[in-house]
Order: sequence, then structure tokens, then C-alpha cells
Amino acid sequence: MDSKLLYGTEHFLSVMSFSSMALLLDQPLQKLSRSASTPSECSPILLLLSRFVVFDKDGVLEQIGEGKCYIDMSTVDADTSSKISEEITKKGGYFLEAPVSGSKKPAEDGQLVILAAGEKTLYDEIIPAFDVMGKKSFFLGEIGNGAKMKLVVNMIMGSMLNAFSEGLVLADKSGLSQQTLLDVLDLGAMANPMFKMKGPTMLMSSYPPAFPLKHQQKDMRLALALGDENAVSMPVAAAANEAFKKARSLGLGDNDFSAVYEAIKVPEPSP
Amino acid sequence: MDSKLLYGTEHFLSVMSFSSMALLLDQPLQKLSRSASTPSECSPILLLLSRFVVFDKDGVLEQIGEGKCYIDMSTVDADTSSKISEEITKKGGYFLEAPVSGSKKPAEDGQLVILAAGEKTLYDEIIPAFDVMGKKSFFLGEIGNGAKMKLVVNMIMGSMLNAFSEGLVLADKSGLSQQTLLDVLDLGAMANPMFKMKGPTMLMSSYPPAFPLKHQQKDMRLALALGDENAVSMPVAAAANEAFKKARSLGLGDNDFSAVYEAIKVPEPSP
Amino acid sequence: MDSKLLYGTEHFLSVMSFSSMALLLDQPLQKLSRSASTPSECSPILLLLSRFVVFDKDGVLEQIGEGKCYIDMSTVDADTSSKISEEITKKGGYFLEAPVSGSKKPAEDGQLVILAAGEKTLYDEIIPAFDVMGKKSFFLGEIGNGAKMKLVVNMIMGSMLNAFSEGLVLADKSGLSQQTLLDVLDLGAMANPMFKMKGPTMLMSSYPPAFPLKHQQKDMRLALALGDENAVSMPVAAAANEAFKKARSLGLGDNDFSAVYEAIKVPEPSP
Amino acid sequence: MDSKLLYGTEHFLSVMSFSSMALLLDQPLQKLSRSASTPSECSPILLLLSRFVVFDKDGVLEQIGEGKCYIDMSTVDADTSSKISEEITKKGGYFLEAPVSGSKKPAEDGQLVILAAGEKTLYDEIIPAFDVMGKKSFFLGEIGNGAKMKLVVNMIMGSMLNAFSEGLVLADKSGLSQQTLLDVLDLGAMANPMFKMKGPTMLMSSYPPAFPLKHQQKDMRLALALGDENAVSMPVAAAANEAFKKARSLGLGDNDFSAVYEAIKVPEPSP
Repeated sequence: MDSKLLYGTEHFLSVMSFSSMALLLDQPLQKLSRSASTPSECSPILLLLSRFVVFDKDGVLEQIGEGKCYIDMSTVDADTSSKISEEITKKGGYFLEAPVSGSKKPAEDGQLVILAAGEKTLYDEIIPAFDVMGKKSFFLGEIGNGAKMKLVVNMIMGSMLNAFSEGLVLADKSGLSQQTLLDVLDLGAMANPMFKMKGPTMLMSSYPPAFPLKHQQKDMRLALALGDENAVSMPVAAAANEAFKKARSLGLGDNDFSAVYEAIKVPEPSP
Repeated sequence: MDSKLLYGTEHFLSVMSFSSMALLLDQPLQKLSRSASTPSECSPILLLLSRFVVFDKDGVLEQIGEGKCYIDMSTVDADTSSKISEEITKKGGYFLEAPVSGSKKPAEDGQLVILAAGEKTLYDEIIPAFDVMGKKSFFLGEIGNGAKMKLVVNMIMGSMLNAFSEGLVLADKSGLSQQTLLDVLDLGAMANPMFKMKGPTMLMSSYPPAFPLKHQQKDMRLALALGDENAVSMPVAAAANEAFKKARSLGLGDNDFSAVYEAIKVPEPSP
Repeated sequence: MDSKLLYGTEHFLSVMSFSSMALLLDQPLQKLSRSASTPSECSPILLLLSRFVVFDKDGVLEQIGEGKCYIDMSTVDADTSSKISEEITKKGGYFLEAPVSGSKKPAEDGQLVILAAGEKTLYDEIIPAFDVMGKKSFFLGEIGNGAKMKLVVNMIMGSMLNAFSEGLVLADKSGLSQQTLLDVLDLGAMANPMFKMKGPTMLMSSYPPAFPLKHQQKDMRLALALGDENAVSMPVAAAANEAFKKARSLGLGDNDFSAVYEAIKVPEPSP
Repeated sequence: MDSKLLYGTEHFLSVMSFSSMALLLDQPLQKLSRSASTPSECSPILLLLSRFVVFDKDGVLEQIGEGKCYIDMSTVDADTSSKISEEITKKGGYFLEAPVSGSKKPAEDGQLVILAAGEKTLYDEIIPAFDVMGKKSFFLGEIGNGAKMKLVVNMIMGSMLNAFSEGLVLADKSGLSQQTLLDVLDLGAMANPMFKMKGPTMLMSSYPPAFPLKHQQKDMRLALALGDENAVSMPVAAAANEAFKKARSLGLGDNDFSAVYEAIKVPEPSP
């Protein structure tokens, strides 16, 4: 089984399919399988998505061995990543965690940001593949740092989206045009692709899940837990997390995370 | 006194000088005085900065009269703006509130966003002048809406900066490179000029005031008060506001508002 | 008009009637009118309820004069109290602010706590009257301190009720008996009359207003504003305030303040 | 080994000693060993404190067997409790979790509240022993409910203490006497033993640990996690938790949990 085969296998496809990473399959992965110079010591390259696939029967651990390597591009917490790393190293394999920042749209456009950590030599060799999949990759040091960086980024994202939602509600209830608020924000120092992309759909109460709210809330929770470990007080993130929980309690967990807006909205007075 | 004179008068200069608007003077206003087609019914055009200048002896109210107009580009709260409007209208004048979004750098670059509200005809005629000073102007309807829109925008800004600061602290305490976090953010969906501009200076604990923290906190307070009026619950903004208050209690009120980062930082253990 | 008459006048009754103080009328005030030794320099004693009654035509200010005194037992903010004090002093009168802590039940039982501030000599003379109305009175120093102390107390009250409500919801959703939680709390270090009184009615979603939610929220807001003035960061009070605002947005403003529980509850899934 | 012996063994003493439960030893346990009618099916009764003691060599699991029972009065999370229960049941034993609410002082005074869950028949038989140790015991149903109830109670406690601390700081910075605030609170509807006990020591910045801050913060975290599981949004508890984390970051983790007051205090301006 070489890497070329791998990218086309049923196994890999099915694994990829239960995540937003599935989007990669349409195009970038075909590119990847053609263009990536497979690191010689490293076959097969496995890009899998879940701890279960690692530890399960027929999972990564059964296939890994001396000189083989495993790159995990799913988002797992630092502890799980450490456990995977330990097991693989024990069997003589190499491990790189490489979660990505960015969801559906960046994945489709090859604009993901890859947050790699673990085996530096493996990272160096896989860079060409990363260059096809994402616009930029970072090597962050020891195992767990990829997961942690992703949590920090997603925590900021969740808080920002709450701030944005509160602003939209405040504008509306204060008699201002929400569309104008979007326009003003887009011209100022806070202009960012997320506001630009999510704003218009939020105003339409449309929440097809690019990143499900329940996953965003889980990342907020894990980021707060990381802060707990390190005695970092994060009151804004904590308030945002509670808003996402409120949204979950309203049954919005499977919607896009921007649906937190619905939990912040002032309910219409009943007639 | 025609508009050309006005822009050069000592009076105007001194008025302009007690605000960040002073920056406008270097260049954009010279352009303005040359290019603006002064509305015929409207001379002089006054761009002043404080309610005191309006109500004081020799203030706007003493000079305003039939067919004259006054454009206030300072940031006052909606109530004050309404009072000014009422007085000017009583005397036969026209009034436009036109606070700007953007601080030092956008002002220098003619990149301000102008949030106008009040007399629509006056707005229509002054657009050419606004086009010189800012990159875009909006007409937001009735008096007070300019002030309100600015509060909404600044509230989002303050919450975002807190989220950003919490992220920077979390990264640091979790063993991640803060610089890498800045790089990752700058490549992703949350990339925005504010993070790009403030991040590097925050990491150096450098806070020359582009927008003083105490003013940012005042705007958070006023935005929360606006929410109070309209029964809008904004827990993230409220948490951010308390962080700014903490920063004030640490004596950081006159620093740039990004100094809230200092209040969020985990103190170094004493030796 | 002597003080005895005063307590029975239509004027006083009507004034008293637009507040929770009205409860005093049933019994304690009859006691008061019989037992209070009226301070000789001080007739009439006026116990009124609103700044409007002070400043209006036929209000306190028109009746006050040399050697007369005015005791205000309503809850006004410190600024208003200062203004009243100034005006009365200008006319040669004496002023004591004396807001009460406690609502319907304590008022009926003569168990109010009186938070007096202002003219110390007037306080000393009126103590016998206070002793009838309340179980304890405090003299807090300069004008405004009565109002401030009341805000601090009500802020703690509002935060506590939120904590209590969150606990009740958490118990319920975690499969615990809410009644048992009430019992456990009542036996422990946090046992307090408020939990004991409000708990059972909250479980029945019964909120006859002993203290209306909108007033509680106003006091939270004013307490936070007092903190703002003095650069005191109060994140828990701020979060509680936002919950009360949420409750207002749900139309609960005229219910008892314990109705904030409804805003915290997890909504039942729709069928 | 019968229960009488057990209560006096070195083993038990050493186990008890690493917790606040140790206080029980002075007196109530001697009473207990004399007065408790040991349930006949149940010897020995073990009252231990840590999961390690359960699962370790020579731990509970090695001693438990058919017809024996184990009562765990430590505070463990619901998951651990479930695991212990499962293992003991597998071996034919009976299990009751029975964490206590109350710390040093109530323990010394036999005023603990016991939150039992698990084997109902064991609970019924052990009641006499519980009656000696605490003033009241509750049977809460299935395993885990004792732990959960304790978390709910401690969450309310932590939020209340934050509200109290914020009030003390606000009073001070507003020019009010903190002692008077304590007096006023003690006369009103929020009067409770915790404020009465902690208030005076907090004003002296004295924090001998009756319940260490780091444990209180852990309970806040676990209560929030319980809320997370059940989609309960608890913004006030979340804000309180962040304050406890701030206190930990200031090195106050080993102080009494009332030391959170130090994290809320406004720092004195440096000279």
C-alpha cells in the first residue's frame, strides 16, 4: 500500500467523510496524491480523523510500524494526541499532529492553515503536501501544541462571534440598520472575513453548518479547560461559552456556530 | 466668513486640537478646503468637537441662525446630540451629527468612516467634503443614530480586543509562541487590521494612546446603557467592560485601549 | 400641621401609596404616629417618595423653610439626594436621606433596616420613629451614602439570586430534586431568608412582585455605574445584570425580581 | 476487623488526615464508633477519602467482598463514583457515596450535611451513624447524585462569595464602611452564616484555609462541566469561576476560598 493508493482507498474516503475535512476530497486531495513527493521513509501516510480510527481494530496502530509515519489532521485534544504519539513511537513509527484552522470554504479553496507539531523531520518532508492543501503551515514544537493553538484560535473566534452577535442585536433594537452595521464594520479596523461571510446569513437566520455550534462550544470548553490548567482567567471567553451553551439548550447545536445569534436575540413580544 | 476661511481660523484649529481629530489638520483638511463645494445655504460650516463649544459663550449656538448649518463630527451621546439639534433647529439652523469610526491612523490616511445622521439635505450637500476626509460616509437617519452606531461598533471592538488579549495570554501560558498566534490569526477568517496593528505593540507592552482606554471603557459603558434602555442582554460586552474597568483600576486609563491586555495577563510569580 | 396630622393626611397617604412603602400604612405607621416623639425643631416631618414630590408645585421645597426638616425614605440615587439636600439647606431646612433595605414582608413586620445619611442631629432625634418602623437604623455619614449602601446591598442580592437560580436549573437538569437542594441549602452556611422565601415560589413559577425585577435591574445598573465611577471591576454583578436584562426582554420586568429564574431556565424542547 | 476497630486503625487515620474530614476525628468519630449500631451485613464500614485508596494496592477493592459495604464520604466526581460503585457491585459489595456539605467549623460541631446516594438499604442502616456526624442526611437516589448535589451547592457558594467580595470592594471604594455593610447584610434577607463568618476575616486579609481556594475553583469547574453536559448556561457561575482562576494565578490557591476577595480588590496606587 503506497500513499497514492491510500488517498483513493475506500477506507480513507469513509474516514474522511465523517468530518468537514471531507471537502478536501473533491479536489485538493486529488492534487495532493498526484503532486506530493512522498517522503521515502514514510509509507503509508495516513490522514485520519478520529481517535477511534487510531485505536480501533484495523486502526492506525495495527498498521503502523518501524519507519512508518502517521499524520493526524483531525482536531483532537492535546492529551489524546500525546497518547497517540506515545503508542506510535513505541512501535517505531513517526507521528505528526496537524489540525487545520479553517472550515468548509477555506478547505474547498485550499486556504487552510495547518498547525503541525511533533516529529520535526516528518514535518519537513511533508511540507510539499501541506503546501497543496493549505496556504500556510506552521511547526509548533512538541506534540499537543497543534491542538492547543487550534483551541486558542477557536476561542478567539467564538468570543468574536458573540461580540458580533451582540452588536447586531443592539443595532436592531436601537433602531439602526443591521446591514449598515455590517457595511460599517467591513470598512473599519475590525473588518474580517468571518464577519463578512457570516453576517449576511445570520441576518437571514440561515445556519447551514460550516462548523457546528456544538463543536465550537466544545472548543470553547476545552480552551477554558486549558486556561484552567494554567490559571488563566478568561472572563470574556467564559461569557461567550455560556452563550453557546444557551444556544445548545435551545436545540441549535447542529446548526452553524453563528446560530449563537439566535440565543442572543431579544424574543419578539408575543401578540 | 466663508468655508475656506473657517478651516483656517485659529478658532477652528484650537477646537480641533483637543481631540484625535486634530490629525486631520495636517493634510486632509487642506484638501477639503480646496475641493469642497460649499453648500450655498450653509455658511459657515462648523466642525466642532464638544458640547461645551456648542453651548458656551461664543459657541455654535450664538453663531447659528436662519439658513446656517452645523456639522458635529465629535462623538457625543445621542441625548446631547438631540439637545444640540433641538436648539439649532429652534434658531432656524440645520444640524448634522457626523461622528467618525477610526482613530489616529485612519484619520491620517483619510480612511475614516463617517456616521452621519440628522438633516438629510445637509448630508447630501456635504458629501464631497466627507469624501475627502473619509473613505466612506453613511447617512443613518434621525439624530442620535450616528452616535448609536459608533457605540455599537466600539462595543464590538472592545469585546474583540479582550478576546484577542485572552487568547494571547492563553497562548503564552500554554507554552505557545504568541508571535505564531498572531501569524495564524492573520491568515485565517478572523484576520483584521486591528489585530495586525495592535498585536505586535501589545507583545512589547507598548501603549501609546491612539484611542485611550478610558474612552473605550466609556463607550462600552454607554453601549451597555443603550442595551439597558432597549432590554438587550450583552454578557460578552459586559465582561469586556469589567476588564476595561479593571485596567482603569490599575492606572492604565490614559494608555491605548489595547492596554487591557495588561489587566488580563497572569502576573509573574514574585521571586 | 403637626406631625401627628401629617401621618394621617390624604396627601401623605397618596404619596405613600405609589411605592412598596405603602405597606407600612396598614399598621406600623399608626404605631408610629402614636409613639414617635416628634423632634421639636422639626415640624412637619415629611416622609415622601419621589424627587418629583420634592421639586414639584406644592412639593417639599415649597413647604420647607427655616428650622423645618425633611426625611426622604425613598430610594433615590446619590446625585438626586445631593440636589435635594442642597436645595433644602439653602432654604434653612434640614435633610436626612433614609432609604430602607427590605421589601414587602420586612416592611409589614417592622423589620426594615434604615440606611440614613445627612444631618446627624436630625438622625439622632428621629431615632425613636425609626425604631418603630425598622429593626435597626444606621447613620452612614454624608448625603448619598444611604443611597450608595442600598445599591451595594441590592447588587449583592441580585447576584445571589442569580447564583441561586442557576443552581436550581443545574439541579433540575442534572436529575436532582430542586426541593432537596432548597433543603440542603437551608441547612448549610449559605442559608438565608431570601432563599427560604423565594425558593418555593420560584419552583412554582409564582412571581407576585415584592420587589419588581425592573427595579432590581435598575439597582444593578446603578451599582455597576457606581463601580464605574470608582474603577471597581465587578464581573459577577455584571453577568447578573445581563441576566436581569434578559428577563426584562422576556417581558418579566413587572414580576418579582426572582423571575430572573425564568430567563435562566432551559426551555422545554418543543414537541 | 469490625467497624469499631476500623475507626481506630492507623490506616483509617492516615487516610482521613489528608482532607478537611480529618477534623471529624477529634470528637464526632469517637462518638460514632461508640454509638453506631453497625449494620450486620456490613463490616467493615470504610469511610475513605480518595479514589486512589479505592483502586490502590491494599485499597478498598481488595478488601471488599460478598456482603461487605463501603461508604465514601469524600468528594469525588460522579464518574469516579460510578466506577467505584460498579467495581464494588461486581464483587458483591454494597456502595454508598456520602459526600458532606460543610467544612471545618460544621465538621467540628457535628453540623455537617450528608448527601448520600447509591444503595438505599445501606443508607437506611447507616442513618444512626450519620445522625452523629451531621445534623441531617439526605438520600438522593442513584450513584453520582451525592457528588452532583455537592457541586451545585458549592457552585452557589462560590458565586455568593464573589458577589459578597465585589460588594465589599464597591463599598470601600465608594467611601462606605465595610463593617457597616457587614452589619446591614446581617440584618437583612441575605443574612447567612458564611457572610457572617468570612466577612470579618476577609476584612483582615486573613485566609487560613477552611476550604482551599483551589478546591473551590475545582468544584466551580466541575459544576460548570456538569452544566455543559446538560446544556445549562450559567453566566454568573462562569464569571465567578474566572475570578477564582484569577486568584489562583495570583498564588492564592492554598488560601481559604474567601481569598478571592484579594483578586477583586482594587490595587492601591503605587506611590
